[in-house]
Amino acid sequence: MNTSAKHLGGLALLAPMALSSVTAKQKQPNIIFFLVDDYGWADSQVQYGQDLYPRNNMFHTPNMLRLAQKGVVMTNAYACSLSTPTRTSLMSGLNSAHLRITTFTSPKKDTPTDASGGTIGVINENESDPLARGDWNWNGISTRPGVNNTMYITPFVQHLKNAGYFTIHVGKAHWGTYGTPGCSPYNMGFIVNVAGSCNGFPRSYLGKENYGNNSDMWTFNAVQSLAEYYGTDTHLTEALTLEAKKALEYPISKGQPFYLYMSHYGVHTPITRDDRFIQRYLDMGLDEGAARYSSMVEGVDKSLGDLMDFLDEKGIADNTIIIFMSDNGGHSANTVKGGTAHTQNAPLREGKASVYEGGIRVPEMFYWPGKTQAGQRIDTPTMPEDMYPTIMEMAGIKNYTTVQDMDGQSLVSLITKNTGVSPDRELVFHMPHQWRIEDQDDIDFMTAMRKGEWKLVYRMHTGALELYNIKNDLSEMHNVADQHPQLVKDMAKALGNRLRSWRANMPIVRATGKPVAMPDEL
Amino acid sequence: MNTSAKHLGGLALLAPMALSSVTAKQKQPNIIFFLVDDYGWADSQVQYGQDLYPRNNMFHTPNMLRLAQKGVVMTNAYACSLSTPTRTSLMSGLNSAHLRITTFTSPKKDTPTDASGGTIGVINENESDPLARGDWNWNGISTRPGVNNTMYITPFVQHLKNAGYFTIHVGKAHWGTYGTPGCSPYNMGFIVNVAGSCNGFPRSYLGKENYGNNSDMWTFNAVQSLAEYYGTDTHLTEALTLEAKKALEYPISKGQPFYLYMSHYGVHTPITRDDRFIQRYLDMGLDEGAARYSSMVEGVDKSLGDLMDFLDEKGIADNTIIIFMSDNGGHSANTVKGGTAHTQNAPLREGKASVYEGGIRVPEMFYWPGKTQAGQRIDTPTMPEDMYPTIMEMAGIKNYTTVQDMDGQSLVSLITKNTGVSPDRELVFHMPHQWRIEDQDDIDFMTAMRKGEWKLVYRMHTGALELYNIKNDLSEMHNVADQHPQLVKDMAKALGNRLRSWRANMPIVRATGKPVAMPDEL
Repeated sequence: MNTSAKHLGGLALLAPMALSSVTAKQKQPNIIFFLVDDYGWADSQVQYGQDLYPRNNMFHTPNMLRLAQKGVVMTNAYACSLSTPTRTSLMSGLNSAHLRITTFTSPKKDTPTDASGGTIGVINENESDPLARGDWNWNGISTRPGVNNTMYITPFVQHLKNAGYFTIHVGKAHWGTYGTPGCSPYNMGFIVNVAGSCNGFPRSYLGKENYGNNSDMWTFNAVQSLAEYYGTDTHLTEALTLEAKKALEYPISKGQPFYLYMSHYGVHTPITRDDRFIQRYLDMGLDEGAARYSSMVEGVDKSLGDLMDFLDEKGIADNTIIIFMSDNGGHSANTVKGGTAHTQNAPLREGKASVYEGGIRVPEMFYWPGKTQAGQRIDTPTMPEDMYPTIMEMAGIKNYTTVQDMDGQSLVSLITKNTGVSPDRELVFHMPHQWRIEDQDDIDFMTAMRKGEWKLVYRMHTGALELYNIKNDLSEMHNVADQHPQLVKDMAKALGNRLRSWRANMPIVRATGKPVAMPDEL
Repeated sequence: MNTSAKHLGGLALLAPMALSSVTAKQKQPNIIFFLVDDYGWADSQVQYGQDLYPRNNMFHTPNMLRLAQKGVVMTNAYACSLSTPTRTSLMSGLNSAHLRITTFTSPKKDTPTDASGGTIGVINENESDPLARGDWNWNGISTRPGVNNTMYITPFVQHLKNAGYFTIHVGKAHWGTYGTPGCSPYNMGFIVNVAGSCNGFPRSYLGKENYGNNSDMWTFNAVQSLAEYYGTDTHLTEALTLEAKKALEYPISKGQPFYLYMSHYGVHTPITRDDRFIQRYLDMGLDEGAARYSSMVEGVDKSLGDLMDFLDEKGIADNTIIIFMSDNGGHSANTVKGGTAHTQNAPLREGKASVYEGGIRVPEMFYWPGKTQAGQRIDTPTMPEDMYPTIMEMAGIKNYTTVQDMDGQSLVSLITKNTGVSPDRELVFHMPHQWRIEDQDDIDFMTAMRKGEWKLVYRMHTGALELYNIKNDLSEMHNVADQHPQLVKDMAKALGNRLRSWRANMPIVRATGKPVAMPDEL
């Protein structure tokens, strides 16, 4: 309130406002949730695994390293295998199977994305596939009840706003389709929105291409609200960072606690070179695709660093929590990122959309000044649905109510004291869809549960149950189901119970018109 | 802070914040600036003239009537003759000639709109015209110095924000081109932005057409940030009203004073029927174009009424100022609104873009509960540049600084006591451009000054000076320049002095390469 104090010198009553704001600020930490899109587990200099893998050396990410040194590194952090499931899980505290949002949503209403993109009324366009699309919430989450094919929820951001937080959305939203409340951050409790809507990726990362806002390239993925940067050399990642800093000025000047959802479109496709950083990777001899991808990663790393510098400049770094994660595993369905398809998350198996580790295990860090322990590594698995109660606890918000029964658990004890969350929780990853037109055996129609060191994978196409020991076999190369029949049975039962209790959506067996059998009903 | 009090019961220090906010609220009135686009002076049931004209009966505007009964009606209110000039004048407190922004800006940077729309480097595409485009600020206003072809200004909204106002932009911005700071409400001091950018009209008013966000119709005029309403029957005017009410919830819940810039795209072209209201006008026997236009007007009227109802529901109507105006006169260049071209503002001469009264005289009302006198009619002329100091005074903001030297004068005494502003001020209207491809004698390349009951019109094409007595000849049918040579000379001198002091932009005489002569240099 510096400037208003100047202009309103006569209004002495404003003084207590400023005072109480500062006090409140000390009680309520600022929170930045820094979300990267399609960002692979091994795609930085930060060591999430037991070793540094060859892939870690492909990237220059000094600011992620800086965050890792200040905060805690979660070595077993999970997301869902696709964007909307993770993002709606974060917003609701529900598992994606419970949300019945288990693949990405289209920008368009009533347009399930299964298989080739989905046409209303068509169960599954790929009729040669024995499995057809089941019913699911293809319109995403909604803050209004009664919208067809949505899950009605109370978003956590609304509670932050109610509790005095200044809530800022910058970047990708992707919680629901157009024509529904879920497509607007203003319905989720955000005071400010920049560039968030129903699209799941950007039509273009280039300011020179107006981020897709050109008549010769426009699609629903054109990024809105950024006309200030049209025609310039400003990469989308940079534009969003600049907008975030701009929006932060206001709450910081008021001493109001803020929540910034810095939700980058990067590093999703289209894999587009970031001219600021590409040369390093070409010089390293990476192939063109890998160089492009690495330059995008460095752009996101710079964004993180710019925000951390900004907090320092403003003198609020000590009271600002940073949560860093990716919304799913790295994309590996083809070679746009270079390398060989389906291997670009090595040592993890597969990538985005798959329930193998490459699709769901993600980079994740927490930095809570004075609370987290610098440089600590925490091995207990975490899930996206844990973030809702975690952030509520961080903000000191208790006794809040939600229309949904949440599945997540607060991670505050875990990240501050490495306790309080069982390493043996049952973690469910449900992807009962055909993701892309081409059949992909290690991706489509799969469900998995991790519990402790074990992971059960259910292939709906074949009815096969696979068992992996994640601790000893990170790459899921050795199916040991035959050696542990009772464990397979127990985990299948547990997974079936979970899915039934959530009324999870299942695909339809085309021959019978009935849902696919649960893993314990085979 | 009701909800936060619930969640943060233990933080007693928040109490003073709420208290001071309420107190501050009592000191600082809320302000709604309700701006309609291309909305003609006689296009409502409100009587702005000495009589009710036939045109007044074409419209059903109960909420404008309601506002007129509560507030004061300005019978001689002026805007500039085009959108960007008025909007940048409002934002800067500068006359448009001083801004050197004297016609509308393109969405695109470095793209003057003169004549056929302007191509970079082409002085004037209509080479048969003896006058060519001069230099002007075709990139609009900027909040950063050094941007070519912009006027660097301090926007008044920034002062409101600094002084504790929660500032909300909903609708059309149109202060500058993309790639410059002027295209983003976030640079102007707005905390919230919905749908404001560099475009001057909507590609479509229809939710069913996604407001132009479709690949088969997309242009830079597609309205952004409204995906929630895509595919629905929600008319753009209604969508913006709903978004405004949504954004208002937050400051109202906090007891924070707000400034809402409710800047409708309506009733600009494309003249599109509003299905909610069209039948009344068809039943009246209006032609299709006129019926469409009238239905759009009623949509805007409903928006005004909805906001007034909302203030009542929230119990804040008594502390909320409403300012109502249009950004220029009604469009009359063709028959899309029905009727006969160039007559649709009768009894006023011409329309949008012209410095005759049809282009510049606009509906305007002020309602300041407890301050303005219900139903009063005020005849002293007002200008858009007056709004900056007016709003500063309304908000109790003194000693503010601006990088520009303002031209406007506060209207607070005028609207509350009908005094304090001279009815004989010199008012300048400068339009030194060819507006559209087709030459329009009563529109292109003209400048005017009103002073008291007299109005001087300078036609740059011919060098003619016309004089009208506005009091006796509202329709500007009788050029009396020959009867008052000294008055013509004096007014031409005054107008020339004004334009020179502002370094106003002038067109270039193609034959000589020099600027057109000032009106006192003929």
